[in-house]
Amino acid sequence: MIDHPAVNRRITLASRPQGVPAPENFALTQAPVPRPGAGQLLVRNTWLGLAPAARLRMSEGGGYAESMKIGDVIYGQSVGVVVESGHPDFKAGDEVATINGGWQDYSVCDAQSVWRADLSRASAAAWLGILGTSGMTAWVGLTRVVRLEAGETLVVSAAAGAVGSVAGQIGKVLGCRVVGIARGAEKCRYVAEELGLDACVDYSASDFPDALARTCPDGVDVYYENVGGAVRAAVWPLMNRDGRVAVCGLISEYHGELNGGPDWMSILTKRLRVEGFILSDFAGLREAFIEEMGEWYSTGRIQAREDRSSGLESAPAAFIRMLTGGNLGKTVVRL
Amino acid sequence: MIDHPAVNRRITLASRPQGVPAPENFALTQAPVPRPGAGQLLVRNTWLGLAPAARLRMSEGGGYAESMKIGDVIYGQSVGVVVESGHPDFKAGDEVATINGGWQDYSVCDAQSVWRADLSRASAAAWLGILGTSGMTAWVGLTRVVRLEAGETLVVSAAAGAVGSVAGQIGKVLGCRVVGIARGAEKCRYVAEELGLDACVDYSASDFPDALARTCPDGVDVYYENVGGAVRAAVWPLMNRDGRVAVCGLISEYHGELNGGPDWMSILTKRLRVEGFILSDFAGLREAFIEEMGEWYSTGRIQAREDRSSGLESAPAAFIRMLTGGNLGKTVVRL
Repeated sequence: MIDHPAVNRRITLASRPQGVPAPENFALTQAPVPRPGAGQLLVRNTWLGLAPAARLRMSEGGGYAESMKIGDVIYGQSVGVVVESGHPDFKAGDEVATINGGWQDYSVCDAQSVWRADLSRASAAAWLGILGTSGMTAWVGLTRVVRLEAGETLVVSAAAGAVGSVAGQIGKVLGCRVVGIARGAEKCRYVAEELGLDACVDYSASDFPDALARTCPDGVDVYYENVGGAVRAAVWPLMNRDGRVAVCGLISEYHGELNGGPDWMSILTKRLRVEGFILSDFAGLREAFIEEMGEWYSTGRIQAREDRSSGLESAPAAFIRMLTGGNLGKTVVRL
Repeated sequence: MIDHPAVNRRITLASRPQGVPAPENFALTQAPVPRPGAGQLLVRNTWLGLAPAARLRMSEGGGYAESMKIGDVIYGQSVGVVVESGHPDFKAGDEVATINGGWQDYSVCDAQSVWRADLSRASAAAWLGILGTSGMTAWVGLTRVVRLEAGETLVVSAAAGAVGSVAGQIGKVLGCRVVGIARGAEKCRYVAEELGLDACVDYSASDFPDALARTCPDGVDVYYENVGGAVRAAVWPLMNRDGRVAVCGLISEYHGELNGGPDWMSILTKRLRVEGFILSDFAGLREAFIEEMGEWYSTGRIQAREDRSSGLESAPAAFIRMLTGGNLGKTVVRL
């Protein structure tokens, strides 16, 4: 029996952001370390994985099942070590990844909501990114929601981000022509050269819509949507008949007024399918995902980059940087 | 061997309409009656079925596969009698329904594009409506595109129209709560009382969005979209999580500028699926459709009303009346 730790440091929601979150929306607080009940685990977090979905949950009535309340620990995935186990399948010392360990040193999680994260097989950042919720979101969207097929043209927005960078690479593995969209020359170079996409178009360039059209001379069969707004407006007229859109995120629209969407005449006349999805509806596919993505990762067909910072207190700044496009790959925090 | 008829009267596209079509966009012309080739049938049309899809095809680059050209016979379904057969499965005297016999006295059709229309089993108007393209469009949209399930709330726009009136009744047969949307008290009474929907909301009423919300206290699971514009805008905020939209038509948007669509944040946070479809992609289901709908029709579970006029020359006015909401049920022309 190990000593039960005493103090849990947590980053909690101090106030709801208006627009882009600011440091004062977050509070570093302390609380007693909770005890796990039957079927639960107490996990000491060693890494956090930050995700834009947390921004949606910081607003009231954002539509997701669980909006955070003021005082709640900020939503997010983690990797850590089991300290106390209330479930026979886990024991102290096991390495696990959580869906929502939250931004804190210690989390109590239901055993069925965590999975084993073998850190000899992949790094903690990989378990939070490619093999975690980001990677699985990309994989579910392409293989289950839009059912990407070899030979199709795939466009991925936020192609240098945690989900987009995996989605683009999956498209290549599946035999597609893949065009990324990202902001700035450095990200575009990363996407095209390091990730191996066929091209990456800079949406901050003045001729962006024309450049995208030139880069997709055969139109777009599948659009993996992370962004919304002007990026979507440029992709929309390029959609081919029977095209599909996986609506994974709308990061340009999380901070302000709702934008209207594009015309539906294209949906009608081109028989488009536009579909939103959320990872939690596909939890039963986790093992299939780990098997397939683990194979692609271990054979080097899909690679990872991380935006790493250190210390729980660094999480808010890293989160704000991610939401404003300052990151390449998965944003992780080492505790 | 019967005499080959000499003169074919046809309504052709004289000019492309701007906005709502006007009589001068149509011309009554004559041409020699064509001869059927191998695998083809010459059909003497006895009834025409008018459909809003013809309006889309009257514009250039509307996005559908086949825009009409100036001088083309106007697109539309027909019922008629085989006069000469170039296919062993059909003989002179057989009664058939066509997908696109067009607005003319005689049509040459590929044998595989027509089907038998037993007029002792159902009226010509039924073969053009409930058992024709209108009925099959409603059936495909609900049973194959959005996969309506018993217990769901279905909203149908243009609920008194040819497709909407069938879609609403299918929803009732399948065990759903069904709310129609139509314009004016007469149509709403028809939809609620004669067709047996649970309610019908008048979109010309000043409190339409509020009235619709009150009529759908549990939200909307499936929206069968025929209209677009302000009607869609009232339905959109009522969509439930995992809701689906079958985009069958956008009749309010066929005549002018493209409208923008509604926000995609709802698609994301509610995991909505919005899907356009076209009947021709489901041609292989025709026998399954005739079997199921024929059963519903012959047992009185689904009923038909028609808006009937007489004479080929009456078709343009009937078509304009249909596009401007003057019809109840399927618009047919007796030749």
